[in-house]
Amino acid sequence: MPDRVLAVLTAPETGGEAAEPFRFADPAAPLLNVLDLGATRGDGVFETIGVGSGRAQALDPHLARLARSAAMLDMPEPDGSAWRAAVVAVAERLAEHREAFVKLVYTRGVEGTDHPTGWVLGAPSPDNSGPRANGVRVVVLDRGLPHDGVGELPWLLQGAKTLSYAVNMAALREAKRRGADDALFVSSDGFLLEGPTSNLLIKQGDRLITPSTSLGILAGTTQAEAFRFARSRGMTTSYEVLPKDALESAEALWLLSSVRNAAPIRAIDGVERAIDAEFTAALNAHLLARRD
Amino acid sequence: MPDRVLAVLTAPETGGEAAEPFRFADPAAPLLNVLDLGATRGDGVFETIGVGSGRAQALDPHLARLARSAAMLDMPEPDGSAWRAAVVAVAERLAEHREAFVKLVYTRGVEGTDHPTGWVLGAPSPDNSGPRANGVRVVVLDRGLPHDGVGELPWLLQGAKTLSYAVNMAALREAKRRGADDALFVSSDGFLLEGPTSNLLIKQGDRLITPSTSLGILAGTTQAEAFRFARSRGMTTSYEVLPKDALESAEALWLLSSVRNAAPIRAIDGVERAIDAEFTAALNAHLLARRD
Repeated sequence: MPDRVLAVLTAPETGGEAAEPFRFADPAAPLLNVLDLGATRGDGVFETIGVGSGRAQALDPHLARLARSAAMLDMPEPDGSAWRAAVVAVAERLAEHREAFVKLVYTRGVEGTDHPTGWVLGAPSPDNSGPRANGVRVVVLDRGLPHDGVGELPWLLQGAKTLSYAVNMAALREAKRRGADDALFVSSDGFLLEGPTSNLLIKQGDRLITPSTSLGILAGTTQAEAFRFARSRGMTTSYEVLPKDALESAEALWLLSSVRNAAPIRAIDGVERAIDAEFTAALNAHLLARRD
Repeated sequence: MPDRVLAVLTAPETGGEAAEPFRFADPAAPLLNVLDLGATRGDGVFETIGVGSGRAQALDPHLARLARSAAMLDMPEPDGSAWRAAVVAVAERLAEHREAFVKLVYTRGVEGTDHPTGWVLGAPSPDNSGPRANGVRVVVLDRGLPHDGVGELPWLLQGAKTLSYAVNMAALREAKRRGADDALFVSSDGFLLEGPTSNLLIKQGDRLITPSTSLGILAGTTQAEAFRFARSRGMTTSYEVLPKDALESAEALWLLSSVRNAAPIRAIDGVERAIDAEFTAALNAHLLARRD
């Protein structure tokens, strides 16, 4: 079973001329120039997609979000068919793994060339059975920005999935420092946002709730699928602007992401929370079974 | 005359074992692995240093700031002597250029290895005589964060010079879109901060003023030298918390950075401003003449 699989896009942007959309490359060999703006400026966008037994999950929504993120950064539109071909090919090579993932990275390219860089790296997923079954401990961290008005400041790139994730990584380190596993951002004025690499999901009776993307957070692909799953079970779903104290009244909570899927929140700032083991198991079974 | 010169650090962190602190490499050849956290997460720090006729300018303050930025990101302390050796060697190869620069990049390294990556890339500077003589047009952009309290949120990494510069680059594009050359950030509550790649300098009679680093902005190396220069001419200098309307009453203004040096501000949001040509020329002559 291959450990890591790398496909490099020949012309990752729409309108690029390429006989072959991608080539496989050795993931251990150097690929990037030191002038690549992805490496020097965090200037690019990415997606992480779950792969189940060789099939990329929710590929269309992820490709659509990659294009939206690129547009927010004024990057050329990614060539959807080239990216799709590369993802499918990398995913197929991971078919023997029940759970794997691919990461799509699309940078502004080598400074001065006007040619973006794109690659798809696939690998087996780490074992996430622990966090799925036992949950994660989270700390609440202030994201610094207010809950409204960031849409009028597009240069802040809120809602784009950029390579400039140093703050997200620092938030995860802060969580570990405080003895937790993950973080949950709130706005400077106390509204619930998202995790550094996840969306927040709240269950309240037969209702599933997630913070609204009007707050300048990422539109979650796994969260969207969780909503579809809930509605198929007769639950209602809604996007809301929630103050931080909505955490206290929540019946159950999860962090959702494409590889770990639904991780129940078992503690918030050191205060233990009940886990809904039945719903968690059903949701994760649904998410893991996807083959589209 | 070499166009670009690249030195790759053997062990960029303190305590790393290396017989030779660096090796020269071909800047056109791929260097970075696709799993380098600098490229996938903007997770690292950098410095840009002016080079005058082969001598790095203000090397000590830049190396000190690199170390401070790394500490804010919980990265291993950079090996100052290894970085110094690499910078000096690259700068020497650019001795035939009156104006050049080196860029130091220090990333968290390839994911999972715990070995940071470091390199120094040198190149001749672009011709900055135009902006120095004629000035730059700037637009004022909201940075989204308040002017105070960000120091209590260290995961926001304000004041660290990180590779996560997508927002800074987006601000520069927004400035161009509005017909300007550069941007000036203000806090969400209306206090002057810094440019996306520069510090703000204000002249008021015989006083030079710059926004205080207590605002979560970068401590400017060129700004510090401008202050020394001003004091040597009998002027006073101060770090202040200034509301945006301090722009209106300012006698003259500049954006300061290590390669362009002092660029006088000739317009703010489309309103023309007077340039202090004499002081600008004297300051730039001083900055360019440095050989330490």
